Amino acid sequence: MQAEILTIGDELLIGQVINTNAAEISKQLNAIGISVSRVTTVGDSEKEILSSIKSAWQKNDIVIATGGLGPTHDDISKHVVAKFFKKKLILDKKTLAHVRARFRSFGIKKMPAVNIGQAMIPQGFAALRNDKGTAPGLLYHHKGKTFIILPGVPHEMHWLTEKWVLPELQKIYKKKLGDVIIHRTLLTTGIGESVLAERIGNIKEFLEKGATLAFLPKTSGVRLRISVHDSSAQKAKAKVARIEKHIRGRAGNSIFGTENETLEENVVELLKKNHATLSTAESCTGGMLSMRITNVPGSSEVFMGGVIAYDNSVKINELDVPKNLIDKYGAVSEECVRAMVEGALRKFGTTFAISLSGIAGPGGGTKENPVGTVWIALAEKDKPVAAKLYRFAGDRSIIRERSVDSGLEMLRRRLLE
Amino acid sequence: MQAEILTIGDELLIGQVINTNAAEISKQLNAIGISVSRVTTVGDSEKEILSSIKSAWQKNDIVIATGGLGPTHDDISKHVVAKFFKKKLILDKKTLAHVRARFRSFGIKKMPAVNIGQAMIPQGFAALRNDKGTAPGLLYHHKGKTFIILPGVPHEMHWLTEKWVLPELQKIYKKKLGDVIIHRTLLTTGIGESVLAERIGNIKEFLEKGATLAFLPKTSGVRLRISVHDSSAQKAKAKVARIEKHIRGRAGNSIFGTENETLEENVVELLKKNHATLSTAESCTGGMLSMRITNVPGSSEVFMGGVIAYDNSVKINELDVPKNLIDKYGAVSEECVRAMVEGALRKFGTTFAISLSGIAGPGGGTKENPVGTVWIALAEKDKPVAAKLYRFAGDRSIIRERSVDSGLEMLRRRLLE
Repeated sequence: MQAEILTIGDELLIGQVINTNAAEISKQLNAIGISVSRVTTVGDSEKEILSSIKSAWQKNDIVIATGGLGPTHDDISKHVVAKFFKKKLILDKKTLAHVRARFRSFGIKKMPAVNIGQAMIPQGFAALRNDKGTAPGLLYHHKGKTFIILPGVPHEMHWLTEKWVLPELQKIYKKKLGDVIIHRTLLTTGIGESVLAERIGNIKEFLEKGATLAFLPKTSGVRLRISVHDSSAQKAKAKVARIEKHIRGRAGNSIFGTENETLEENVVELLKKNHATLSTAESCTGGMLSMRITNVPGSSEVFMGGVIAYDNSVKINELDVPKNLIDKYGAVSEECVRAMVEGALRKFGTTFAISLSGIAGPGGGTKENPVGTVWIALAEKDKPVAAKLYRFAGDRSIIRERSVDSGLEMLRRRLLE
Repeated sequence: MQAEILTIGDELLIGQVINTNAAEISKQLNAIGISVSRVTTVGDSEKEILSSIKSAWQKNDIVIATGGLGPTHDDISKHVVAKFFKKKLILDKKTLAHVRARFRSFGIKKMPAVNIGQAMIPQGFAALRNDKGTAPGLLYHHKGKTFIILPGVPHEMHWLTEKWVLPELQKIYKKKLGDVIIHRTLLTTGIGESVLAERIGNIKEFLEKGATLAFLPKTSGVRLRISVHDSSAQKAKAKVARIEKHIRGRAGNSIFGTENETLEENVVELLKKNHATLSTAESCTGGMLSMRITNVPGSSEVFMGGVIAYDNSVKINELDVPKNLIDKYGAVSEECVRAMVEGALRKFGTTFAISLSGIAGPGGGTKENPVGTVWIALAEKDKPVAAKLYRFAGDRSIIRERSVDSGLEMLRRRLLE
């Protein structure tokens, strides 16, 4: 089974909105054995929408479109879909009742009239109830093919896909969802793409038939994606396992996790295993390290808290960094991050503490400390403090992200010792 | 002039990577008067790449492709492009010297052999020097049309677009970049899409010829995008200004900013104007509020620092929240956020302080305080503390984002008083 995804909206063509829906839907379809041949994005133009539906409907078993289902005048997708399939729009009473109930539940007694349009659907289409918004999804099955259109708001699209689209497609196509595709991603950090490729060696020696290996560089590190097609999930999984074992033998500790795991999830996991706790003292990252750690559900077991010492007065008053130390060496210095991290460890009584101080830019750089200079220190109870100097390239947000990644990586290596 | 963007990579079709490049390139092209008709995404498959290049090259003046130019075996785009245009790959000595120099600058004396391939380019193509990576961009101009391919790594693509692609296209097409397209986005917060539409009224009354208005909902609020086509920038700008004035008259204070401005930028700006300072006391958001504020360059003028009081012991020891208050009312309560915000204001001596405490989930919800319950307090020197209860829908990250948005919005409204 092969699908094309069609994302509709001027906002996608003028670059105002990043297309997260396509990635989301692709992932979901892959997981039930449907491969995606193409993603096409067009604006809110009748001509472009018609021509892209036509081409996608010809070449694929399944077409999933998103966007342009809202209640306002610029949302034309539903009308164009009805036109393409030569259907009239008719009032769906169930949908209308559902939309009215939504407004009531928000304490709005009189539903804005424009929302009646949300309940008009093309004849012969099924309305997929939307519990997260007012526009229902729409599904049309005809001669073995399926057309689906969903609202473009990401969390509504996401909910509808999980709740209705995947189960419906599995019901419609059952055993036809034949050839299994399995992906497995290994996440590395602290190693470049070509060095990693050399270390892994000649792929022909270990890539079995039906398997591919992709190198995907990202700010935080290179990801290795193993993809395998096979007739059964069992066979495919065994193949993936053999390839993964080979790569792990070559890449060693550079691999910190798999799939969508984050460095912070890995670190929280390792802290739990070690019955250890963590606190932070952040200057240039301004809370980003703590934010990343507390993104992880259950991080409250290991993360106690932190001080955001953005202004030097906070470094002095809250972390007991001596004022004359800052006067002598500056706030971006080995001496300062060492004093900060010791202050945090003392204050919070944790097993570990991390401190960061640097110049994220765009202003504030000097000849000795150009933008991108970041000092990071790691303290562990009853052990000497480690401090390291980094020089990151990139803009303010990349420098801050890399600082956080590097702080987490310092702690990860320590926890693996 | 009309362009199509072609993004290449299996990682985009299986949903592993979100396509940020398409949005970036679209925005850049729009800014020099080139409109984007379509974005097509295909995998690393020769057949799919060939068919998409063919269709895009037929229908457009300009085709910009990204992805699949890396040094590893799975990067096939350059070979397919050479095949489509019937060109041989030849060694470009300038590029080779540049790639070698890059490795030397990283302290790697022996360049991995696989990188020699980076210097092979299709005959008749121009290599666009890449100072951010090893794969050059490639440009081919033929019979009035231009084909460009860039590496898929976002910051390399971004640099090449600004440094070479836009200036080259402006040189090649000069005055043909005729009809000006101007977009203007007004950002609202705290008001729903259909209520906003009713407030703005009948668009036919104020939308002049060549102008459109789009409603774009997002987690943080609805954006209103005015788009205008006209023969000169001056005329287009005047049209936009008239429409904007009308909308502002109707939507009032719900509009907090324009374009890509963020709520935090707006708040930092307002704090500067008021010569005011800010500190934070964060529990459930774990540093996200401070992180968002310190994302703004120059925020160090107004933001002093904060306490991440994730564990209750930190609320008690660092913010002087009485232990018996937490025992009696719980950490997610009006009493607790009031005590937290007073503690922060005292500790940091700032003009304002914001505190947040809530249940971001997925665990931790109770009958009285279900997941999504968040208390936020705002303190101002010599004024009574304000506290507000929110109940957010969504997952952990959405609840945290909305908490931060709401905290910023409380402060923004106060600063506008």
